[in-house]
Amino acid sequence: MNQAQNLINRLTQLGFVSNQFKTHADDLTFFGKDQTKHFEPNPCVIVFPKSTEQVQQIVKLCNELQLVITPSGGRTGLSAGAVASKGEVVISLDKMNKILNFYPSDRMVEVEAGVVTKNLQHFAQEQGLYYPVDFASSGSSQIGGNISTNAGGIKVIRYGMTRNWVLGLTVVTGDGKILKLNKGMLKNATGYDLRHLFIGAEGTLGIVTEAQIKLERPPKNLTVMVLGVEKFSHIMQILANFQHKIDLSAFEFFDQVAMTKLLAANTVVRPFESDCAFYALLEFEAPYEPIMDEAMAVFEYCMEQGFVIDGVMSQSLSQANELWKLRESISETISVFTPYKNDLSVLITHVPDFISEIDKIVADNYPDFEVCWFGHIGDGNLHLNILKPNNLTKDEFFDKCKIVNQYVFETVQKYNGSISAEHGVGMTKKAYLNYTRSCDEIAYLKGIKAVFDPNQIMNIGKIFD
Amino acid sequence: MNQAQNLINRLTQLGFVSNQFKTHADDLTFFGKDQTKHFEPNPCVIVFPKSTEQVQQIVKLCNELQLVITPSGGRTGLSAGAVASKGEVVISLDKMNKILNFYPSDRMVEVEAGVVTKNLQHFAQEQGLYYPVDFASSGSSQIGGNISTNAGGIKVIRYGMTRNWVLGLTVVTGDGKILKLNKGMLKNATGYDLRHLFIGAEGTLGIVTEAQIKLERPPKNLTVMVLGVEKFSHIMQILANFQHKIDLSAFEFFDQVAMTKLLAANTVVRPFESDCAFYALLEFEAPYEPIMDEAMAVFEYCMEQGFVIDGVMSQSLSQANELWKLRESISETISVFTPYKNDLSVLITHVPDFISEIDKIVADNYPDFEVCWFGHIGDGNLHLNILKPNNLTKDEFFDKCKIVNQYVFETVQKYNGSISAEHGVGMTKKAYLNYTRSCDEIAYLKGIKAVFDPNQIMNIGKIFD
Repeated sequence: MNQAQNLINRLTQLGFVSNQFKTHADDLTFFGKDQTKHFEPNPCVIVFPKSTEQVQQIVKLCNELQLVITPSGGRTGLSAGAVASKGEVVISLDKMNKILNFYPSDRMVEVEAGVVTKNLQHFAQEQGLYYPVDFASSGSSQIGGNISTNAGGIKVIRYGMTRNWVLGLTVVTGDGKILKLNKGMLKNATGYDLRHLFIGAEGTLGIVTEAQIKLERPPKNLTVMVLGVEKFSHIMQILANFQHKIDLSAFEFFDQVAMTKLLAANTVVRPFESDCAFYALLEFEAPYEPIMDEAMAVFEYCMEQGFVIDGVMSQSLSQANELWKLRESISETISVFTPYKNDLSVLITHVPDFISEIDKIVADNYPDFEVCWFGHIGDGNLHLNILKPNNLTKDEFFDKCKIVNQYVFETVQKYNGSISAEHGVGMTKKAYLNYTRSCDEIAYLKGIKAVFDPNQIMNIGKIFD
Repeated sequence: MNQAQNLINRLTQLGFVSNQFKTHADDLTFFGKDQTKHFEPNPCVIVFPKSTEQVQQIVKLCNELQLVITPSGGRTGLSAGAVASKGEVVISLDKMNKILNFYPSDRMVEVEAGVVTKNLQHFAQEQGLYYPVDFASSGSSQIGGNISTNAGGIKVIRYGMTRNWVLGLTVVTGDGKILKLNKGMLKNATGYDLRHLFIGAEGTLGIVTEAQIKLERPPKNLTVMVLGVEKFSHIMQILANFQHKIDLSAFEFFDQVAMTKLLAANTVVRPFESDCAFYALLEFEAPYEPIMDEAMAVFEYCMEQGFVIDGVMSQSLSQANELWKLRESISETISVFTPYKNDLSVLITHVPDFISEIDKIVADNYPDFEVCWFGHIGDGNLHLNILKPNNLTKDEFFDKCKIVNQYVFETVQKYNGSISAEHGVGMTKKAYLNYTRSCDEIAYLKGIKAVFDPNQIMNIGKIFD
């Protein structure tokens, strides 16, 4: 009897029922992968626990049977953090998708880890509140996965990362202990905050099974501007000038390449006539007339200074959403060009120099490569996408990109930046971890893992080897 | 030759100069204690490093010589986290008090750990920005100490704890490695965030030597209301109603006992005629007329409902500061009554039941004890102060309080609360740590400590034994 069947039998004895296991080849493939395509999925079984205690039972048995576990949420990851390619037991949180208790005075809700981000957003809305972490995959990503990758998205400049919204966690550690971390409190100074260790740990220390999430009041009269810009340095001027006067909830940018692809794909409406080298999209709350006046004054100042060539401001929520499509459609629109993606971060101060160095590296080495930049300038987070030329096969292209990558990551290191701003490390970035984290740091990471997962069964091969 | 002299000689060989050591009995007493009086200070030497590298040299030597280190900042702590009572080497950060680089685009400043909180606040102000972590001891507390205790204070409801403002840390670990953690980035998803492990670690994993601190735009037209209330439940109604309409930057409360002591000490001006059982102090930005109108409308609604008996609103910044004195003078005013202090936290939802249970416990056991409540209701953080009756000596009183403490912490545990919301654990709370953290959690804390401090030299005896 193989180990997977052994596990199923043992769990069945503990009360698991047949629909809590999947072993069909299609299911193994489906649940064994995320959005990446670098690794062939090959788990041995998919298990669907219904409670924290059932997760604990699985983890304890996997320790006993020496089976490696890959925790699995909405599988929307871009770094193969949830890919099971080596016979792992996948623990899917799909059946732990209940919204539990809501505490209005605390503006806090307890949820199981399998709750889809969008459902949490809707729940918040029903309570007259707001869950501000948002990104393209929020319709299928799960809150447990968001937490395990410390998901970011488009509102970080105002609301921060997922980390900021986690008041408490229930986790099952690698050695099968259930921990209730921080218990929803805003203030708790009683030793190391293990909650923050599990946030962003990509399931390598244990499995997040429940979370206590803080909600916020909803934004009022969100207003969006899209501005056309000639030089990248002007983007920085625009950011500085607006931020001085207005509380921005987003400050995004994209380049001419992105706009050209968007227009060619007919996915968006041209925001204004002028063709520009760069575009800034900014968003702010404007519940009071004077805020709009201030925003217009800054806009006019930026026009006078030549920072802005052309621009448009939303007059309604539907117009705001329409303008957001410009930014949010980029990733899908350029996917037909098989982009080689990097998700980089540096200090905002260093963004202009960093972008021009990378552009030069690509132009010098591969003058026929087209580079598409977009991202969250307000957070120093840049999505670098190199588009595949028609004359190269995917493999040829990716091989060349790997060489470029080396230069890119050296530049990241030079600027004390991050090789993964919000996509995590998983398997695709682990070879490059030392460009952002020192050898000493990585040694400590491994030491911490050994504390929580002494038998080395939790998502092995992710973040580091 | 004793070990302290040995350490001094060895460090002198490495370039330390004589004014970087203090061994006089008065200095040992002065630098060996914080604001607590439970333990007799007794360090063997005070060392004043001038750089991260010098801190590393001290730590490496203490590993070699098996000397225990106590890191020392402004020594304003209330839990004996910085007390050296067992012959420790005190590393004072007093000579590492420089503000280093400022990055306007990132609104970020790099500081040495010995910078006094107030100086950081002033620096921010000079840049047209704001460092929002504030509390009574900010004139002498140091940023390194704030970080090591994750200091909170009076603006947490809006701005969060110190943790929220730390973008990067330089630390020397217990085994003498220098780590540069997170390097100032807003987004960095590259494995466990060790920065958050050092925040609140009370110097037990290593020493914070530098920090990258985020600054914020300054608040505009801060307005303060003080409201008199008859029942505690009305405080909660007031919070809910205001929070629904207004972005509060503070929501504090204090009771009749506190007000009586304040007025008797002549430290404050009576805010209004009515005597009330409880007082709420709330603060918000009112840069636009409609916000003030909304605040007044909520105030009037609360009056109509009987939640508010009497109230006053500041008409100027100086009036706002005057009203704040009511809340900020309490701690000092009641200090003449030798208060037995607890710094507790529960979910806001549980605050009313929690307070009434504690009141009953004290009244049932010690009907002659006077209890003074104040704190940060908006964060669920309550300062419980039991005042010494005249007929008891300090020792008799504290002995009785220790019995009460047992009941108090059992009640904290029942409500899943914290035995130390913002004061840390240090030595005074470590016997009670298990009321907030489980045995499994505490075992993991010790496991983590062993990773960073294998020879057990960093602030031993703090947080846990």
